[in-house]
Amino acid sequence: MPDSHAAPAYQQLESRFRRIALIGEAEGVLHWDYAAIMPSGGAEARSEQLAELGAIAHGLLVAPDTRDLLDTATNEADTLDDWQVANLREMKRRHKRASALDEDFVTRMARASSTSEQAWRRARAESDFSIVTQPLSTLIDMVREKADRIGTALNLAPYDALLDAFEPGARTASIDPVFDDLAAFLPDFLEDVLAHQARQPAIIKPEGPFPKSAQRELGIEFMKVLGFDFRHGRLDVSHHPFCGGVPDDVRITTRYDEDDFTSALMGVLHETGHALYSQGLPEDWRLQPVGEALGMSIHESQSLMMEMQVCRSRRFLEFAIPKMQAAFNNPGPWWNIENMIRVYHNVDRSLIRVDADEVTYPLHIIVRYRLEQKLLAGTLDVADIPEAWNASFADLVGTKVPDDAHGCLQDIHWFDGMIGYFPTYTLGAMTAAQFYQAACTQDPSIPAGITDGDFQPLVAWLRDNIHTTGRLESAPDLLTRVTGRPLEAAPFKAHLKSRYLPD
Amino acid sequence: MPDSHAAPAYQQLESRFRRIALIGEAEGVLHWDYAAIMPSGGAEARSEQLAELGAIAHGLLVAPDTRDLLDTATNEADTLDDWQVANLREMKRRHKRASALDEDFVTRMARASSTSEQAWRRARAESDFSIVTQPLSTLIDMVREKADRIGTALNLAPYDALLDAFEPGARTASIDPVFDDLAAFLPDFLEDVLAHQARQPAIIKPEGPFPKSAQRELGIEFMKVLGFDFRHGRLDVSHHPFCGGVPDDVRITTRYDEDDFTSALMGVLHETGHALYSQGLPEDWRLQPVGEALGMSIHESQSLMMEMQVCRSRRFLEFAIPKMQAAFNNPGPWWNIENMIRVYHNVDRSLIRVDADEVTYPLHIIVRYRLEQKLLAGTLDVADIPEAWNASFADLVGTKVPDDAHGCLQDIHWFDGMIGYFPTYTLGAMTAAQFYQAACTQDPSIPAGITDGDFQPLVAWLRDNIHTTGRLESAPDLLTRVTGRPLEAAPFKAHLKSRYLPD
Repeated sequence: MPDSHAAPAYQQLESRFRRIALIGEAEGVLHWDYAAIMPSGGAEARSEQLAELGAIAHGLLVAPDTRDLLDTATNEADTLDDWQVANLREMKRRHKRASALDEDFVTRMARASSTSEQAWRRARAESDFSIVTQPLSTLIDMVREKADRIGTALNLAPYDALLDAFEPGARTASIDPVFDDLAAFLPDFLEDVLAHQARQPAIIKPEGPFPKSAQRELGIEFMKVLGFDFRHGRLDVSHHPFCGGVPDDVRITTRYDEDDFTSALMGVLHETGHALYSQGLPEDWRLQPVGEALGMSIHESQSLMMEMQVCRSRRFLEFAIPKMQAAFNNPGPWWNIENMIRVYHNVDRSLIRVDADEVTYPLHIIVRYRLEQKLLAGTLDVADIPEAWNASFADLVGTKVPDDAHGCLQDIHWFDGMIGYFPTYTLGAMTAAQFYQAACTQDPSIPAGITDGDFQPLVAWLRDNIHTTGRLESAPDLLTRVTGRPLEAAPFKAHLKSRYLPD
Repeated sequence: MPDSHAAPAYQQLESRFRRIALIGEAEGVLHWDYAAIMPSGGAEARSEQLAELGAIAHGLLVAPDTRDLLDTATNEADTLDDWQVANLREMKRRHKRASALDEDFVTRMARASSTSEQAWRRARAESDFSIVTQPLSTLIDMVREKADRIGTALNLAPYDALLDAFEPGARTASIDPVFDDLAAFLPDFLEDVLAHQARQPAIIKPEGPFPKSAQRELGIEFMKVLGFDFRHGRLDVSHHPFCGGVPDDVRITTRYDEDDFTSALMGVLHETGHALYSQGLPEDWRLQPVGEALGMSIHESQSLMMEMQVCRSRRFLEFAIPKMQAAFNNPGPWWNIENMIRVYHNVDRSLIRVDADEVTYPLHIIVRYRLEQKLLAGTLDVADIPEAWNASFADLVGTKVPDDAHGCLQDIHWFDGMIGYFPTYTLGAMTAAQFYQAACTQDPSIPAGITDGDFQPLVAWLRDNIHTTGRLESAPDLLTRVTGRPLEAAPFKAHLKSRYLPD
């Protein structure tokens, strides 16, 4: 919140960053519209709108006097309170990153990104990678140039320069050992889980049709149980589910399959975890950098805590399954609670990341993490992505990919220019386990509440400990303060063992 | 289209106005979202987003070097072609209007406008004018200040300064006599029409329910008949129907009444007329001022031509009524074609402008036109609007207003800060009649096509003569070129007499 006693330079920076944030909010709504409801013929104009807004925001961030104001405000930092100091630190970080790129480059890149994303939508629909080869090559060339420029400015390796945008402070040097560890642990663990699973009663798969309208109503019912505020958000449909919009108007999307309600429902609960974080950000610091969410591993920890730690737990499923049954006029033997828990705890060598179980999921991520590093380094050509994907997937997950729609075309990320994003999902899964372990230890009413569908204790704990702190501290500091330890895989592994290989 | 031989100053202006236009497009989508689908809690953030984008565009328009560039480009105008000269003229007009207002004022006014509009949505729902008295008073004070500032800059009376924004060149001095003439002609004509109507067979009113989904499908079917391109647009719902979005992605809205499909359907056809104009604007000049639609009387002439001149004509209704019947599983005696034509030609002393027949409609406009002049002059207080409205309405239309939701709260315009807009509806009705008379004379295949639901000849004529010319000429020049005469009420009166008092 602006403090009238703070230095004028700092106040000018708050005004400037408020304008930049409002442009970003406009972009957020336009992007949601693009993905959820825009007619196809609007794509070119929308690309131009987004490119131009991006260029305007970039121009404000790197305006000649922004650096002067930052220097002046830094010299006057003893007049600032803790939040203002953290806000100034975030401003400087953004300025430094953005100054590495000129406005023309940002405009061209935003346009290339929209063009590639649009081509991807067609390529995916037709399962034809060749449709997107050329626009993606153009885009990856620009991503490489961006990584080089930022890397040079920040003294980071190109991939780390990209990664740092999504997860400040994260480096391949620290991720590689953890991911190598998971890549060594998970395939054998997966075998054990599959063997254990084979000794359980066979799953009776729910049989549709489960009408979209009923799935939507059920999703909304559970969103309310979790605490989503519909005065400040919506639920809609898009090919690739996401949580977008702005903190005062959070737009989550899903996609429905009338033969199987289970994945869309968990997808909605996942995005609701993201949405609760957005809706819980510090109101006093809205539109300032320090008021924004932390990096993607913390964001993903919020969605994965809701989906994986909480909503797929036995205690929640025992509450939820009767409500699922009541939502559909579709009786069947599958509604037996133990059977439905087996459905929700089922592990397989799935092809699609967003449908993958939490045991296989990190392997999906490691495939992408390793390929995108090669793509950026130029040791993998865009045209060779399908072959490399299929080989890597067979090696780690042990499954053959039947076509590119179920392989390398399944995710929007690369086609939108996002390299360095994927590892945050698995960093998030580990963070979620660590946070939830701490939460249940600190407040036993949290797991007790879940049993009755009462999310108030959990959401209150998340609000107090995580959501309302915005970017006041770094992600590692936050994790250490809240859980008493730095990030470690142990709580995640303990969680997997307890759920999938119980004694 | 940029010409590499044109003067550098002109090229710089094209870049600048392109950026301004793209911000305007973003605002267009955000405004559509606000009216059609935004959750209520997003209103404050949306107001801030729109205010900031408005301020950025305004800042670009009045930037210190814009005037210098305009002066330089004017001196070099002999290097420009006709389109560029017209583009430069439009740039200068906008710069002159915008320079009369500073950025802070524009920001504050946009915020006051959104606040008032939001209050109006509640006031209208509760039919309680007092909810909006205070925010509307704040807004009208700012509209008055705006009118004074622009009027001083352009040497115009305050009301004319506002009117000129919506209809360049229009002045109360020329509108007053035409409106006084209509105000003198229409009440007696209305009596005659009602007397004639009383001698016809009684109307059998269609009886619902007419499900919203079926109404929506029917609307889409007719939009396609008229030539709306769904790759470049959508049909949605909002309280106050409008045509928004951007030329490449035109968003029209309607509202459905399950007891009566007839008004929503004609509303959709009306907005489709607007949409066809937007979709037909000159592609080569997209994002430049000369590529935009002309003032609101020409825009309204396009919607009213489709709705009033064409779609309510006997020749179209004979084609359309069987399709309406087929759309609803709801048999009844009202589907008789002569009865349905009487439904669509029915005249009464309606309360709601958007539901009003074309005989009464100009009287609705004259009520608003006269009141808003007083409101701006300060001779009518905001708190006294309901009383003044009801008195004026009783006098001109001859009906008592039962409550403010059916009276002064029915339209969004004033509550959005739009004063000087209403007269363009009736100017548009007269222009529509004059254009359509010319079109049918010049190409007899136009009315013949309508008989078979073939709109191609009409839309081709509109594209060639009106849509693709953008702002190359002024509205009066366009009308004179296309019809051979300046604007006159005679074709409108002839149309009314022929439809409602046939020999």
